[in-house]
Amino acid sequence: MAGGARDERSVADKLFAIADAFAAGEELTLSEVAARARLPLSTAHRLLGEWVEWGGLVRGDDGRYRLGMKLWRLGVRQPTARRLRSAALPYLEDLLESTREHVHLAVRDGLGAVYLERLSGRDAVPVISEVGSRLPLHATGVGLVLLAHAGEDVLHEVLASNPRKYLPNTLTEERELRIRLAEIRSLGLSQAVEELTRGAFSVAAPVRDASGEVVAAVSIIAHVERRGEPQFALGVRMAARGISTALGWRP
Amino acid sequence: MAGGARDERSVADKLFAIADAFAAGEELTLSEVAARARLPLSTAHRLLGEWVEWGGLVRGDDGRYRLGMKLWRLGVRQPTARRLRSAALPYLEDLLESTREHVHLAVRDGLGAVYLERLSGRDAVPVISEVGSRLPLHATGVGLVLLAHAGEDVLHEVLASNPRKYLPNTLTEERELRIRLAEIRSLGLSQAVEELTRGAFSVAAPVRDASGEVVAAVSIIAHVERRGEPQFALGVRMAARGISTALGWRP
Repeated sequence: MAGGARDERSVADKLFAIADAFAAGEELTLSEVAARARLPLSTAHRLLGEWVEWGGLVRGDDGRYRLGMKLWRLGVRQPTARRLRSAALPYLEDLLESTREHVHLAVRDGLGAVYLERLSGRDAVPVISEVGSRLPLHATGVGLVLLAHAGEDVLHEVLASNPRKYLPNTLTEERELRIRLAEIRSLGLSQAVEELTRGAFSVAAPVRDASGEVVAAVSIIAHVERRGEPQFALGVRMAARGISTALGWRP
Repeated sequence: MAGGARDERSVADKLFAIADAFAAGEELTLSEVAARARLPLSTAHRLLGEWVEWGGLVRGDDGRYRLGMKLWRLGVRQPTARRLRSAALPYLEDLLESTREHVHLAVRDGLGAVYLERLSGRDAVPVISEVGSRLPLHATGVGLVLLAHAGEDVLHEVLASNPRKYLPNTLTEERELRIRLAEIRSLGLSQAVEELTRGAFSVAAPVRDASGEVVAAVSIIAHVERRGEPQFALGVRMAARGISTALGWRP
């Protein structure tokens, strides 16, 4: 390729670096994109043009670029997200109706829990998760459930990553994490108070597919004053069981 | 570029052609991808490798390729979809609770209505829409509402596209479409029976943003026997109004 000596990165690398600049869903100017993708302005401009022509990015009237509906349509076709979400939605809706708090469905992605779905009651407690968010395994209800059913190597990676203590109740020490994960496995449920969000408690349970493997977790995040109410544990258990059955799991 | 004479398409074109091969969310073999993207096997293999390295595609144990979670996460960050969905969800949930049928949120994309969200009661009538689907403007409740508030040029394009008569009630003639669109504008509501789906009726209403422009439509698709029940028109109107207000619209 001409000019290869000046820039070793492939065209694909550069195109994907441009997409990565939009990972937070922001609207960006040409120079912001060029800076984030570490590309010369002229290269960024040309490659942005390719993205816009395809429809993956859109250029607004103000000259800023943003993710396009084409990328959204492609993303929502992702088979795992689509299959899990479609199996789970009726159960998540039941859970929402009976609690009016936040209802989550998440899968593990490396050392994070990625939120596939979130339904929220109108007066639910303020939380930072939203669809597409990736929150740490050790500090969230769904994350701890997913971690409890991941391999020993994942736990090692979490411990090696210097896990952050968001609040006094966040578990970061190996010994306390191991006790908690064993408890989650034996109860089939994670219950915690103020691990990531002040004023909130969480109840989470594992979702299994036909092979019996834990493929997702479902949770409720509710106002901490309501933590004594029995419907949270019951509802999360029933939802997790219903979704697992819909995925072909047989106990 | 070396070999440029043999294939005039840019690397970006070829990379995007590969992504387009996955538009239906299927899992594909190398040769299926090569055929759909009209690329030699070796080129398809190399570019699939670039996609997999980035995370936009994933190669399964069986050697088939599918869309990856990275693309899903990027897609759900698309600002329009995210903003509309987040403003709309509480109202869509209320509508679901009060009807237990299908609740839709859609935006116009060319001559199609793209479904941003669908919530469904467990016994709702079978329909073909799902999140990410793109259905024709002239044959759906949301589509007709969006068409009624699009420019005259969009109507011309619809008429010129030889719109398909899915069922006897599907409107395809200019005169009947114009009457129907005027009615939708004057009532602020679209009501129709068996236009796209047998056994179903639809009620749809426009969603406006702060500028007053119609940016989306909300609808219910329900069993045709329930069409006399008053809560459908009332509920859809209230939801559309609530979402518009959440988007900053002031009547």
